[in-house]
Amino acid sequence: MASSLLSRITDPHRLGELHHDQLTALAAEIREFLVHSVCRTGGHLGPNLGVVELTIALHRVFDSPSDRIVFDIGHQSYVHKILTGRQDSFGTLRAADGLSGYPQRRESPHDHVENSHASTALSYADGLEKAQRLRDEQHRRVVAVIGDGALTGGMAWEAMNNLGRGGGRTVVVLNDNDRSYSPTVGGIAEHLAALRDNRDPDRDLFTTMGFDYVGPVDGHDIGAVERACERAALLDRPVVVHCVTTKGRGYVPARNDETDHMHSIGVIDPETGLSGKSSAPSWTGSYGQELVEVGAEHPEVVAVTAAMLHPVGLHRFAQRYPDRVFDVGIAEQHAVTSAAGLAMGGAHPVVSLYASFLNRAVDQVMMDVALHRLAVTFVLDRAGITGPDGPSHHGMWDLALLNAVPGMRVAAPRDATELAALLREAVSTEDGPTALRFPKGGAGAEIPALRRMDGLDILFRSRSRPLDVLLVSTGPLAAPAIRAAELLSDHGVGATVVDPRWVLPIAPSLVHLASRHSLVLTVEDGVRTGGLGTALAQACTDARIPAPVHNLGVPREFLDHGARSAILAEHGLTGEAVAETALALQGSSDTNRSPRLAGSPR
Amino acid sequence: MASSLLSRITDPHRLGELHHDQLTALAAEIREFLVHSVCRTGGHLGPNLGVVELTIALHRVFDSPSDRIVFDIGHQSYVHKILTGRQDSFGTLRAADGLSGYPQRRESPHDHVENSHASTALSYADGLEKAQRLRDEQHRRVVAVIGDGALTGGMAWEAMNNLGRGGGRTVVVLNDNDRSYSPTVGGIAEHLAALRDNRDPDRDLFTTMGFDYVGPVDGHDIGAVERACERAALLDRPVVVHCVTTKGRGYVPARNDETDHMHSIGVIDPETGLSGKSSAPSWTGSYGQELVEVGAEHPEVVAVTAAMLHPVGLHRFAQRYPDRVFDVGIAEQHAVTSAAGLAMGGAHPVVSLYASFLNRAVDQVMMDVALHRLAVTFVLDRAGITGPDGPSHHGMWDLALLNAVPGMRVAAPRDATELAALLREAVSTEDGPTALRFPKGGAGAEIPALRRMDGLDILFRSRSRPLDVLLVSTGPLAAPAIRAAELLSDHGVGATVVDPRWVLPIAPSLVHLASRHSLVLTVEDGVRTGGLGTALAQACTDARIPAPVHNLGVPREFLDHGARSAILAEHGLTGEAVAETALALQGSSDTNRSPRLAGSPR
Repeated sequence: MASSLLSRITDPHRLGELHHDQLTALAAEIREFLVHSVCRTGGHLGPNLGVVELTIALHRVFDSPSDRIVFDIGHQSYVHKILTGRQDSFGTLRAADGLSGYPQRRESPHDHVENSHASTALSYADGLEKAQRLRDEQHRRVVAVIGDGALTGGMAWEAMNNLGRGGGRTVVVLNDNDRSYSPTVGGIAEHLAALRDNRDPDRDLFTTMGFDYVGPVDGHDIGAVERACERAALLDRPVVVHCVTTKGRGYVPARNDETDHMHSIGVIDPETGLSGKSSAPSWTGSYGQELVEVGAEHPEVVAVTAAMLHPVGLHRFAQRYPDRVFDVGIAEQHAVTSAAGLAMGGAHPVVSLYASFLNRAVDQVMMDVALHRLAVTFVLDRAGITGPDGPSHHGMWDLALLNAVPGMRVAAPRDATELAALLREAVSTEDGPTALRFPKGGAGAEIPALRRMDGLDILFRSRSRPLDVLLVSTGPLAAPAIRAAELLSDHGVGATVVDPRWVLPIAPSLVHLASRHSLVLTVEDGVRTGGLGTALAQACTDARIPAPVHNLGVPREFLDHGARSAILAEHGLTGEAVAETALALQGSSDTNRSPRLAGSPR
Repeated sequence: MASSLLSRITDPHRLGELHHDQLTALAAEIREFLVHSVCRTGGHLGPNLGVVELTIALHRVFDSPSDRIVFDIGHQSYVHKILTGRQDSFGTLRAADGLSGYPQRRESPHDHVENSHASTALSYADGLEKAQRLRDEQHRRVVAVIGDGALTGGMAWEAMNNLGRGGGRTVVVLNDNDRSYSPTVGGIAEHLAALRDNRDPDRDLFTTMGFDYVGPVDGHDIGAVERACERAALLDRPVVVHCVTTKGRGYVPARNDETDHMHSIGVIDPETGLSGKSSAPSWTGSYGQELVEVGAEHPEVVAVTAAMLHPVGLHRFAQRYPDRVFDVGIAEQHAVTSAAGLAMGGAHPVVSLYASFLNRAVDQVMMDVALHRLAVTFVLDRAGITGPDGPSHHGMWDLALLNAVPGMRVAAPRDATELAALLREAVSTEDGPTALRFPKGGAGAEIPALRRMDGLDILFRSRSRPLDVLLVSTGPLAAPAIRAAELLSDHGVGATVVDPRWVLPIAPSLVHLASRHSLVLTVEDGVRTGGLGTALAQACTDARIPAPVHNLGVPREFLDHGARSAILAEHGLTGEAVAETALALQGSSDTNRSPRLAGSPR
């Protein structure tokens, strides 16, 4: 039986029943299970193939959940999930109501941290250990598993500064595969390389900062990792166990994938590693392509990425202009402020990030870029609802946060043509920061404007009664807005759809347009408290125009993983649902007051 | 003449005319000038007394402004300002329209970075140097002056990771006085102490990260600093010049101040170092006092501070419960996420920060605390308009940012009694994060409620027509709101003043109350786009109650330094101005529509 050992491990304590040959066989079974299961569902394959032995060893040495094993980022917790009784759920990985792609407390008492943003594990460990000390629970150990890439993030440094001399006993398991998505950059990467090669073993950073250091250890040798962890567990001080691993280990297509060793995959054939689907042009791809051309037109444009050259589509730009692209590591704060420095020095930086990771650099956007009115362009990929990666990957906060930034202008292209145009407008803006946002996935069909009017694109206008309802759409939500307008027209309610293109701050022309309609509905895929809709409602009130602006968007809640389209549908952001809402609001205003009551002040 | 040398230095190039004895005399003149001038105006005295010689040496070795000297935090730039032709303006230091307490580009081409948040200088330097390389300006040097305290911040690490192996030649001048406000904490502090003592000089962190290292140098020996900088300037790689300085150097009252060596002072007598004013009880003091009592009532409460034990009032708590307070360094990200760990482990952390510094940890508040529904309380001191420290110290963004956080509840006490009550409500909240916000300065007179109604405090109610105008005040803006209501009553317009106590999220009872009034005015001292007012307007619309909610607050702009009261007055936040606005809005609604038009739906 191929899975005979794996099926016995219903709980991590049962690992103790296996002798070492069986453990090696178990690792092989887990790897086979991972390849076949993740190829069917999609998910983070490469990182998990790299931590099979490491995770087995951790669960043999430490007593989870009494000992707390905290995974940084968490996308490498699949093996941990398998060993803690969840292998049967892998068919539902990352699907709505299925197994999360990250630790999740409601799944298991062995899980602790659900956030998938990098470099947090050492800080959690510091807090957990302080709490254990206060509550006299010193039999418990805190084990933080963190990748070398995450050490490029400043939070990890802040935590190391506290842990090293804090009097605790945290075991930091450094999973060093020399990668973030791409190879890890900077001084720490070179230092770890020297440690791996046993050059200068007495001059390690960790000892300098107050840790003990055990390693380097072959992270694919279960016995070696166990011995290192046992040694670490005996110490009465914080310790780094330096494990050297290989991302994508044991699966040839992953090892052959030089971009990121199959960091995260869609559904693929496990034999070939190839996807069956022909991939439609994505927002990311369109942007990456366009930036190469913008680079030719604008020699002052440079690109900045935080360890995500490929995922944000900058690799083409990097090939063409290798001196004009800067990968700063998983370091969004530095990405933004070094961009401020670049702009002060005369360049025009384009900082490409996932929208959700911009949260890491709100202060830097505000105080380092905007306060100095610097011409930096932020390109926010994965804005809005992202999908299978769950609550900490949804890019639904960007508009609410950027609306607080003085002088910030935000554009949301509705299609690839608009992306190209708005990107050019952004890099030509010289008197302050700009941002572009677009979601994950394909850019979809082109949506031509009927006409452009004071900077606004009119996308649809009913033949009759076009002033009944104004639908203000954000970026690609133009499509459901147009569908809603068509449905409304079919019901005898006239509608107009406008795409403001630059969604923040609110254009006076949009306020004027809103004032001419009986009902205004804003349609966006970010949190509805604080985005375009809220801003438009306030702008109308400020202009003393009592336009009835209702806001559709995502509620202020953390949203689980699931398909983007399903999540949007759940929150009323399909054409049909928008039309229904408009009809209901129209109906209620018809009942309570005359239809034109709150319309034009004339 | 006491100031004969100083008066000659109208430009830093003129420093070259002085021989070394004269430089020593100049340093003494500058120190005397600083003491007498800053004691008259208030300002950052201690830090500047520590960098007199250092700054003279920098301006002799480097060619500012062609070489760019970037000051981290910037409160230690007074000597730089004196040497770059601004000594005559020191009488206006930190006053409205006067000399800024930080570098300011409109004052001088020698100034670059206006943001006063810590740990940014190395990132600016990285960007500036990259820009210089791209533009073939390699004759220019970038000099980043950074304190040891700022090295506890993660951004500095992110930048070091990039600078060390980035191929540039940044000169990092480490101003090591072993202090943030208080002594610097953690592994980096102990490491610097070892370097200062010439223990283990071959194992320095900086060399590990790819820098050259020059030092330690006596930062009060102009010649020694010059020689170290000259040596650094000859190198073709990044270098740290480790200068050891003494905060408050040369001024006995500052040296004797063990709290923070007169980090920042009000107006004092230069001879005695004593303030003439008896200090009224401050918000900070009331909070600090109260937290000690809360600590006795709630053994699970622990306090977390980011290098600001005294400024946020935690020293009393620390004296009483030394094991229950954690100073994590200038590391807001770690402060928040280690608090998340503490809460996971069963403690109730109270994280005390200046409101403006919470911007540094938006992602951690969102993803590490709120996503996990952890009971962490944030206490935001210096919320709203702060005053003389200018745009990056005003705590005016907190409500806009926290309004985006799912499950976050924010309270704004109007007086010290309410502070005590709300603090207790916050630490008794077990199912998610809470925040308390209060401004700098004195808490002022008690403002008793007429009655509490569904969680809302009614503070004022006109005898006649109380439903004409509802004023919704945030925290201490209760006082001008009541004044406005009195004035409105005098004009025959009735008014009610309500303090929601918990300002976010909007209570349904507040929406109901708003719906019963003809006009609603929200009054807050944060940015008016995104705070309480915006949220209330949206909540009314969502409830299908067309209440006419107008928002008063601070505009979405960076506001210069000046007195808090003057800045509030400038933006219409006095009782008189609020009353005028209410009358104007009332008038316009009377003209355009019937007075009760948008009132109660009944």
